[in-house]
Amino acid sequence: MIALDISAVPGDQVGVVDVRRWEPFGLGDRLPFFGMWYTVPPGETSPRDCHPEVELSIVVQGTAFVEVGGRITEVPCGGGFLLGSEEAHVVHNRSGHTPLTIFSAYWWPEAADAAVALNEAHAGAIA
Amino acid sequence: MIALDISAVPGDQVGVVDVRRWEPFGLGDRLPFFGMWYTVPPGETSPRDCHPEVELSIVVQGTAFVEVGGRITEVPCGGGFLLGSEEAHVVHNRSGHTPLTIFSAYWWPEAADAAVALNEAHAGAIA
Repeated sequence: MIALDISAVPGDQVGVVDVRRWEPFGLGDRLPFFGMWYTVPPGETSPRDCHPEVELSIVVQGTAFVEVGGRITEVPCGGGFLLGSEEAHVVHNRSGHTPLTIFSAYWWPEAADAAVALNEAHAGAIA
Repeated sequence: MIALDISAVPGDQVGVVDVRRWEPFGLGDRLPFFGMWYTVPPGETSPRDCHPEVELSIVVQGTAFVEVGGRITEVPCGGGFLLGSEEAHVVHNRSGHTPLTIFSAYWWPEAADAAVALNEAHAGAIA
């Protein structure tokens, strides 16, 4: 078991956003995705982002207001959102006091294609 | 953008644990892993679990006490833990009042092998 502690990763400032990528955990050969956390301070908005990687986000603190194509969707703590390849997005933190922290997994579409076939071959459902 | 709402998924009781798998979202061909949330009520412990899939867990509510091989590790809300293939584990919720909810991504080891090569080929780092 490997514990993944947000405070163990150096922060990297991207505009107003604090980004903590998982490279220091050295998990690159074990995960079928890249991982990071990022934090949007109270009252702030993340820089517009658009990338070829598909991105799954899980809100772990605060409430996200995710803007895509002019439409804003509220995602509460614990909820998630999936962004497609090249889907431009910004994330608003409308709280006046609570930071918004998001866990993000991201991968190239062809990596999912390769993994899906292998995962589905097992018809796996745990627990 | 697809919002992933925990309340939109029917719960499945596994012992004391409420499990919400992601099959209803129909994302099976887009993610390189399976996804679910599970909730351990206050004062309870999950059934012992052991499976071939590698599992990444992110705590989204409460604090997890993860027991592996007789050793217990505290993982606070927002933090994560990675369980290897066939690594037996139980998760304790020591709170007297707060449910423990965890997002879990899980995949077969060979799916990660296939995805890693494709992800790394891009040397991808977003944002």
